[in-house]
Amino acid sequence: SVPPGVLPLCHRPPAWGRAPRQPPGLPLAPCRAFSNNKILVELDESSGVATMKFKSPPVNSLSLDFLTEFCISLEKLENDRACRGVIFVSAIPKIFSSGLDITEMCGKSTEHYTEFWRAVQETWLRLYGSNMVTVAAINGSSPAGGCLLALSCDYRIMVENPKFSIGLNEAQLGIMAPFWFKDTFVNTVGHRVAERSLQLGSLHPAPEAHKYGLVDELVPEEKLQEKAAAVMAQWLAIPDHARQLTKSMMRKALLDRLVAHREEDIQNFVSFISKDSIQKSLRMYMEMLKKKN
Amino acid sequence: SVPPGVLPLCHRPPAWGRAPRQPPGLPLAPCRAFSNNKILVELDESSGVATMKFKSPPVNSLSLDFLTEFCISLEKLENDRACRGVIFVSAIPKIFSSGLDITEMCGKSTEHYTEFWRAVQETWLRLYGSNMVTVAAINGSSPAGGCLLALSCDYRIMVENPKFSIGLNEAQLGIMAPFWFKDTFVNTVGHRVAERSLQLGSLHPAPEAHKYGLVDELVPEEKLQEKAAAVMAQWLAIPDHARQLTKSMMRKALLDRLVAHREEDIQNFVSFISKDSIQKSLRMYMEMLKKKN
Amino acid sequence: SVPPGVLPLCHRPPAWGRAPRQPPGLPLAPCRAFSNNKILVELDESSGVATMKFKSPPVNSLSLDFLTEFCISLEKLENDRACRGVIFVSAIPKIFSSGLDITEMCGKSTEHYTEFWRAVQETWLRLYGSNMVTVAAINGSSPAGGCLLALSCDYRIMVENPKFSIGLNEAQLGIMAPFWFKDTFVNTVGHRVAERSLQLGSLHPAPEAHKYGLVDELVPEEKLQEKAAAVMAQWLAIPDHARQLTKSMMRKALLDRLVAHREEDIQNFVSFISKDSIQKSLRMYMEMLKKKN
Repeated sequence: SVPPGVLPLCHRPPAWGRAPRQPPGLPLAPCRAFSNNKILVELDESSGVATMKFKSPPVNSLSLDFLTEFCISLEKLENDRACRGVIFVSAIPKIFSSGLDITEMCGKSTEHYTEFWRAVQETWLRLYGSNMVTVAAINGSSPAGGCLLALSCDYRIMVENPKFSIGLNEAQLGIMAPFWFKDTFVNTVGHRVAERSLQLGSLHPAPEAHKYGLVDELVPEEKLQEKAAAVMAQWLAIPDHARQLTKSMMRKALLDRLVAHREEDIQNFVSFISKDSIQKSLRMYMEMLKKKN
Repeated sequence: SVPPGVLPLCHRPPAWGRAPRQPPGLPLAPCRAFSNNKILVELDESSGVATMKFKSPPVNSLSLDFLTEFCISLEKLENDRACRGVIFVSAIPKIFSSGLDITEMCGKSTEHYTEFWRAVQETWLRLYGSNMVTVAAINGSSPAGGCLLALSCDYRIMVENPKFSIGLNEAQLGIMAPFWFKDTFVNTVGHRVAERSLQLGSLHPAPEAHKYGLVDELVPEEKLQEKAAAVMAQWLAIPDHARQLTKSMMRKALLDRLVAHREEDIQNFVSFISKDSIQKSLRMYMEMLKKKN
Repeated sequence: SVPPGVLPLCHRPPAWGRAPRQPPGLPLAPCRAFSNNKILVELDESSGVATMKFKSPPVNSLSLDFLTEFCISLEKLENDRACRGVIFVSAIPKIFSSGLDITEMCGKSTEHYTEFWRAVQETWLRLYGSNMVTVAAINGSSPAGGCLLALSCDYRIMVENPKFSIGLNEAQLGIMAPFWFKDTFVNTVGHRVAERSLQLGSLHPAPEAHKYGLVDELVPEEKLQEKAAAVMAQWLAIPDHARQLTKSMMRKALLDRLVAHREEDIQNFVSFISKDSIQKSLRMYMEMLKKKN
C-alpha cells in the first residue's frame, strides 16, 4: 500500500494492467470492483464506465487518507484501457462531500500541512485534467472542497432537493478559497456570479445552483443513476482523442497556472493556516460542529 | 481643505480618527454626519454603515470638485474603524449621476485635462478596490461615468422604473470608453453583452439592465433604502478579513492593469480629448443639452 | 483575377475606388452589383449597406476558391467609402455554410494544406477585425467553419426553424477546433457553455443556439431581410469612429494572438491533417456524405 502523502505522480504501472476489453457478447464478469477504506470503485467493462462511490462516514470529508486513495484510484482508472469515464457519487445519505477535513488543518505540524495541501493540489490537477469523461452525480450537499470536486468534472447532475446545497463557502469560515478554486469557479459560472458568491461564501440550494450554472442539471433522486449513465453515454459517443484534445485546450491554462505556482501556493496555505487567529477560528468552528452533533 | 486635483493617495490620517465603536446599548448619538458641498456623508455607528448621498445639482455630474470630494470622503470612511460599509445614493430626483462633467473636458488646458483624468482614475481605483462593502442604490438614470461608479460597487440595486436607464453610452457621443471602464463592464456582464452594449453605446432601461446582469436587483423606489440596508447586513455578516481577501483576489488583476498603465492612459485621454474634432463634438453635445433644458 | 491562395494582404487599391457617395435625392442607380463565381455582392449606396450572398452549391462549403473570393470581396467593401456595413446571407435553401471544404484537406500536398489554412486564417482575421458593421443573416444550418463565419460578425440573426442548427462540431468528426475558433466561441457564449459544446461537438438547433447566446435573435424566415436591415440601421446610427475603436478594443487581443502564432498554427494544422489516421477519418466521413446524397 502507498504511504499517505506519497502520491503517485504519473504513469505508474496501472494496478489492473492494460488488459484488452472483454470480447463482446461475453455475459459473465462484466464488472470489476475494487475497494479501499474510503472509496468503492466499480468498473463496468461493457460500457467502459467506472463509478467511484465515496463511503467515508460521517460526511465524506476530504482527509489526507481520502485524497490519497482518491488519487490512486483515479490513476488506476486513467491507466486502464478498459475505462473511458468515471461517475462520482456518495454512498452516504444527504452529503456528497463536506470538503477538506478541518482536523488535518488544526493543531498539526508544518510538515503535515505541507503534505496535506500537496494532496489537495494533486487531487485537483488529476481530476480537472483527467483524460476520462468525469460526471459528478451530486446526491447531497457539497460545500467547499466538495464543491471543487464537482466543479472539476465535465458535467454536474444534482438531486433536485432544495435542502442540498453547493458552493465555495470558505469566506463564511473566515478563510479564503485558493486562487485555483476561484479560477475553476469562474470558468463555470462567470466572473460576476463568482465575485458575489465567493465573497458571501454562499451555499446555493440545488435550484439556485442550477440557475447560476453551478450544476448543469437537476433530477429526482431516483433518476440520478439513470441520468448519469445517459449523460456519460452521450459524452462517450465522441471520439476520445478529439474530446481529450478539446478538454485540454479549455483547461490547460488553469492547470499550468497551479503547476507554475505550486510551491508558492503551499507556502501561502501553510503560513496562513498556521496563524493563531486562523487556528482559533477553526477550533471554534469544530467545537460548534461537535455541539451540533 | 484639499486643493482640487491633489488627491490624498493613501493612509492619510483619518479625519474621524480611529475611535473604537460606541459600546453596545448606548442609545444616543449613533450617527455622525459630515458634509462638503457635493456629497452628504452619514455614518450610523451602530451598524457600521455609512451613506454617501450625491447632492450636486442639476445632475450629479462628476466634476473635478465632485471627484475630489468623493475620494476624500471615501478615504475618511476607509480609515475609520467604525465604518465597514457604504451605500451610495442620489439626493436628486430621477438621476443617480450623469457621468463625467463635459465642461471639464471642453476648452481647457492640457494641465487641466491631466488633472481631471487622474481624478477619474483615482476615483475608480479607490472605489473598485475598497475594503469596505459598497452598495449602489441607483435611484435614477446612470449613464457613462455614473454607470462606472455603480459597476465599481459590490452590489447594485436599481429602482424598477423603466424610465431610469444605465449603461456606458460613450460611443453615442462619438468617444470611446477607456479600457478599464470596459474591463469593469466585462467583469460584470461578460464579453458578449459588453461587446454589443459598448459598440452601440446602449443605455439600458432598468428591466433590461437587470436582465443583462448590469444591476443585481430591482425594487420599487419606496423600498430602496430598506433593501440596501438588508443587502448590506448580509454582506457584513461575513468576516471582514476573508471578504476583503476574496474581493482583492477577484479585482486585483484589473486594478493592477490600470496602475501599470496609468500615465499612458492619461496621455491617451489628453491627446484624444484635445483633438479639434472631439472638442467640436463635445461643444455640439453641450449646446444640445442646453437647448433641451 | 487573383490567383487562388495569393490573398491581398491589406490596403490594396479598392476595385470600386473611393468615389464619394451619390448625392442625396438621386433616385437612379442606387445599387452597384458585383459577382464572381461563388458570392454575389450588392451595395446599396443610399444606405451604405452591402449584402454578400453565398451561392456556391451544393452547400456553400468554404473551399480555397470560396475563401479567396470572400477575402477579396470583403477587402473591396472595406476600402469603399460608400460602404459602412455588410449583411451575410445564403442564396441556397436550408444551408448558410457547411464549413471548411473537406476535399481541400484530403489527399492533397503539404503546400496545398498550407495555402488553404492561411486562407482560413486570413478570412477570420479580416472578418473578425472588420471596420464595417457585420451582420450574419443565418438562413440555414451553419456547422463548423460556417459557425465561425457567423460568430465573427457583430450580430447574428437566425431563422427560427429548429431544423437549422449551428455549432463548432469538429469533435464529432474526430478533429479539434483551432484555438482561435475556440476563443471566438468563448467570447460569444462564455467559458462553460463553450467547454461543453466544443467537447461534445454540439450542433445546436436554432432555439437552443439562441438560449445559449450563440445567436442574438430568431425570426421567421420571411422577416429575416427586414430584421437584418433594421439591426444594421441601429448599428450604423453610431458614429463609425467610436464604434470601430470600441470594436477593436473588444477584439484586438484575440486577433493579435493569432497574428503572433500564425505560422505555428499553420504547422500544427498541416502536421495534424497529414496524419494517416486523420486522413482515414476524413475519407470515411466523405464516403458517408456521398452515400447520404
